[in-house]
Amino acid sequence: MSATESTKPARKRRQDGERSRAAILRAAAELATIEGLEGLSIGRLAEHVGMSKSGLFAHFGSKEELQLATIDTASQIFEEDVVRPALQAPTALGRVEALCSEFLRHVESGVFPGGCFFASVAAEMDTRPGPVRDAAAEIVGGWLGLIEQSVAQAQLEGAIDPGEEPAQLAFELNALLLLGNASFVISRDPVAVERARRGIRRRLAGAGTS
Amino acid sequence: MSATESTKPARKRRQDGERSRAAILRAAAELATIEGLEGLSIGRLAEHVGMSKSGLFAHFGSKEELQLATIDTASQIFEEDVVRPALQAPTALGRVEALCSEFLRHVESGVFPGGCFFASVAAEMDTRPGPVRDAAAEIVGGWLGLIEQSVAQAQLEGAIDPGEEPAQLAFELNALLLLGNASFVISRDPVAVERARRGIRRRLAGAGTS
Repeated sequence: MSATESTKPARKRRQDGERSRAAILRAAAELATIEGLEGLSIGRLAEHVGMSKSGLFAHFGSKEELQLATIDTASQIFEEDVVRPALQAPTALGRVEALCSEFLRHVESGVFPGGCFFASVAAEMDTRPGPVRDAAAEIVGGWLGLIEQSVAQAQLEGAIDPGEEPAQLAFELNALLLLGNASFVISRDPVAVERARRGIRRRLAGAGTS
Repeated sequence: MSATESTKPARKRRQDGERSRAAILRAAAELATIEGLEGLSIGRLAEHVGMSKSGLFAHFGSKEELQLATIDTASQIFEEDVVRPALQAPTALGRVEALCSEFLRHVESGVFPGGCFFASVAAEMDTRPGPVRDAAAEIVGGWLGLIEQSVAQAQLEGAIDPGEEPAQLAFELNALLLLGNASFVISRDPVAVERARRGIRRRLAGAGTS
């Protein structure tokens, strides 16, 4: 038996373990947008993914650890599905527009059945202080900061009126995104997302210099 | 003993019962904005208001009945605290402005610790179909309809550009109100509410004919 052959099974097991943990956390993130992050107990998740509670305890030692790992997974999904493609746009104004349009596409595509994971979790955790709320709030703050920085950059590039306050414009765009998300989740009516798109186009046209 | 005297104790008892039911439901509405409407079991509420579970069962036969009665109470509070004062404004544009400003004052005043009761409940119940969600959705729809009608009336009065679509403008104003609410609940920072006020002033100025 060569050295290469003898390490194969161990490597295979490790990969399976990783894949399994990733798959569990993805299911956990989906479930959390329906039943809430507080409803995400190890027992409830075990039932949902068809594993034993002890099997899940091997992955996550406590409910809080599971919640924090779920937030981390949802953040990676959001980063890959929304942020990374949007930041490909060559101009800063293009990045502002793409952050908004990718967000709404993400919501409509149903990646999470309860819409934007972080909107769902923020609404639930707002009155429950602790590390889980702090982790979610940090990601929400990072998203808002990203829009704000892109607005400021677009001002430097001469595409957005220098009289606009970046944090104020980011707030207004985010307001439209979040109501688009919330209305779509309740109604499943694409008009909700279209209203958000129309409001954003109008607001950015008003902020433009051209 | 006169007839008047003999009926007094019964009347007194009835009033106490009513007052007590109203006080319980107000406490239930406050609790629901923190722990969610799903967390509002008869057992949890009994603990919160310091009554026995059997005492509460005499008022509400089931969790769903309690949830529906709580929504009804929150609706009355919202009506008295926000809608009624706002509708005193003599012009339709004034009513649009007052619906927005009274909503934000209501949020800041902390009537409910978790901010707007219906925003909190809508976010929680969006993925849980049933009579409780339907009751909450009806009130949210009524609120949006009220802004929309006031916008349409303001167009008839010549104060809002006839080119504006009332449902679209109502959506945009509501988006700013709801993010003002959500940000304030998380941060307790009056800047959140101020950003919503500023966005609304700007949007209404853009929609105005003067």
